[in-house]
Amino acid sequence: MRPVAVVGIGKTAFGAFPDRDLRSLAVEAIRNCLADAGASPGQVEAFYLGNFAGPSFAGQSHLAPYVAAAAGITGIPATRCEAACASSGAAFFQTVSGVAAGLYDVVLAAGVEKMTSQPTPRVAEILASAGDLGGEIKAGATFPALFAMIARRHMHEYGTTREHLAAVAVKNHDNGFLNPQAHMRKRITIEQALAGKPVAEPLTIYDCSLVSDGAAAVLLAPLERVSDFAGKAVRILGIAQASDRVALDEKDDITTFRAVKVSAEKAYRMAGVGPDDIQIAEVHDCFTIAEIVAIEDLGFCKKGEGGPYTADGCTLRTGSRPVNTSGGLKAKGHPVGATGIGQICDLVIQMRGEAGERQVPKAELALAQNLGGSGATAVVTILSAL
Amino acid sequence: MRPVAVVGIGKTAFGAFPDRDLRSLAVEAIRNCLADAGASPGQVEAFYLGNFAGPSFAGQSHLAPYVAAAAGITGIPATRCEAACASSGAAFFQTVSGVAAGLYDVVLAAGVEKMTSQPTPRVAEILASAGDLGGEIKAGATFPALFAMIARRHMHEYGTTREHLAAVAVKNHDNGFLNPQAHMRKRITIEQALAGKPVAEPLTIYDCSLVSDGAAAVLLAPLERVSDFAGKAVRILGIAQASDRVALDEKDDITTFRAVKVSAEKAYRMAGVGPDDIQIAEVHDCFTIAEIVAIEDLGFCKKGEGGPYTADGCTLRTGSRPVNTSGGLKAKGHPVGATGIGQICDLVIQMRGEAGERQVPKAELALAQNLGGSGATAVVTILSAL
Repeated sequence: MRPVAVVGIGKTAFGAFPDRDLRSLAVEAIRNCLADAGASPGQVEAFYLGNFAGPSFAGQSHLAPYVAAAAGITGIPATRCEAACASSGAAFFQTVSGVAAGLYDVVLAAGVEKMTSQPTPRVAEILASAGDLGGEIKAGATFPALFAMIARRHMHEYGTTREHLAAVAVKNHDNGFLNPQAHMRKRITIEQALAGKPVAEPLTIYDCSLVSDGAAAVLLAPLERVSDFAGKAVRILGIAQASDRVALDEKDDITTFRAVKVSAEKAYRMAGVGPDDIQIAEVHDCFTIAEIVAIEDLGFCKKGEGGPYTADGCTLRTGSRPVNTSGGLKAKGHPVGATGIGQICDLVIQMRGEAGERQVPKAELALAQNLGGSGATAVVTILSAL
Repeated sequence: MRPVAVVGIGKTAFGAFPDRDLRSLAVEAIRNCLADAGASPGQVEAFYLGNFAGPSFAGQSHLAPYVAAAAGITGIPATRCEAACASSGAAFFQTVSGVAAGLYDVVLAAGVEKMTSQPTPRVAEILASAGDLGGEIKAGATFPALFAMIARRHMHEYGTTREHLAAVAVKNHDNGFLNPQAHMRKRITIEQALAGKPVAEPLTIYDCSLVSDGAAAVLLAPLERVSDFAGKAVRILGIAQASDRVALDEKDDITTFRAVKVSAEKAYRMAGVGPDDIQIAEVHDCFTIAEIVAIEDLGFCKKGEGGPYTADGCTLRTGSRPVNTSGGLKAKGHPVGATGIGQICDLVIQMRGEAGERQVPKAELALAQNLGGSGATAVVTILSAL
């Protein structure tokens, strides 16, 4: 396998854009990405599109060639990958694998979701399709309810508190406030977070990520070719994807995501680094409890200590290991299919030193963790500065 | 790139199975495939699932880990590929690429669709999502209407007749009659085909493929490892996937599928063979006109001569180059996401000499062509006996 680099990134803002359709968002991200790389559509040898539910949200299937052609790209393999909220993580994994293995030199990966055109109950129903429809969903669970059960169990096992969850929300809102591309740019206090409207006990509105529209894209090439592109490149040092059972009730332990642990172990091994080496991370905080579980499963702190680790400020921009300096899914927004590749873009922005007011001092070794559903898919990527 | 072999195949029957759900069909095909290969779930290093519209037909997303776990497979990359009616062709392409490039040794690919649980108007609406929703579909086109326009233009340009179309239907029904796993086992006469109930002029009910439930799976491994598996292996000599614009009105010429031509040229080049070398083929006859366009674009006959070539009997089981001896999408059935991998299974059955009454004498070099929508995705595979 040969080393692979991200040679271009492009994003749209994340938010609610009533006048924009799915394709125009994806094409904007792709054009921004190709411009960043100084590349043309004709150079792209394969295209992977991460999209969770375009057919359900917008009625349109066959999205990879549909988006690619609108960006001036035809005649190549163009494939949509769907793995719930890890759809573009999965697309990115395919893309990295293809370049690493020498199947292609220049490959484009994008992620997109257009969610806000549907009323909230329909959005909840579509999101629930990432769970086990014949089991947990039939029994009445929604995604906030599934993660509420995870939170309750984590509280029971490890003494995690509502204050710990609120600390995640306060931090990510503070980061999102400084991100011009974030969906919600509003600082909140710990008191506000604790007094949030209940969604599924113990989770309030401030524990839940946002329903957003948005797109993100990356261009990959072999490391030896980075000088052919304009964008300041970063290297992909390790990557892995893993699967697990979909239904929460089929898991032995719901306070850990086995697919995250498996993919993190593989990615660390491939990269030749450990959790302590990681300087900055974007993790999948679809709910505040998910960030706490993630930083534990990734080995940033011991199992059960994610709450205190967060409350102590370790994951702040000014902490020992900043997490979700983009604002995370919580404040940046969570256009499901765009989230995985959006995380990669946000890390590259930090690694290039282009994060403005939210810039951290050390961002040479970075980690992204993208989760599908309540953990049946996980993708972990480790990036290093050149 | 190293040579890759199909070391196991498994299918369900195609048909209408009101008592079966999507997952049970996929798991049956996977179990049959692993049994055929003499392999265990624990040997599978990656899993690709081709599925067009499980979320729309059955409300269930996140299908790759959902299906894999039920077959005893967790902890590996499990990704759903969607490319309309070429969804499992795209999944198969990923699988072959991964083994060829040395990313994995033993990889499983499956395709599945459960369509008959929805009423016909809803099925037509879901299928239409493979077209351009904001353009041709908004203007009132259904897929039969799109292919009726292709047929009309082909008739106008090349003198193709209703009798030519009917010859495709009569042949494929005759083949399906002999296939115990076919959805519709009923012979028809040319008179019956011509007198079929109109669907979209000039296409009648006998020009249209079936709405079916079903699943198919293949296990792939490097050629050098075929002796580790029980199934009689065949080699993948060439494969390519290509994209094109989705909307019919955005194409220069609707009597040819550019993505088929591009992928066929690449696959022939990779295989080091030409159209004349191919002894048997499964092509994507979603409508009778699609088979005629396919055999032209694949180079089996000259452009415009697909009709007479068929009417002359060249594509019969007893002809010079049998096409769709399984019964094709027309009679075997078209569970959309299962079709591409189903074609591979049907060719392997012929290449192994296990096709019973529909066995052809020469099946050492075979070709499969899978089409998405009205041609925005195409996958062409060339197989050779060992």
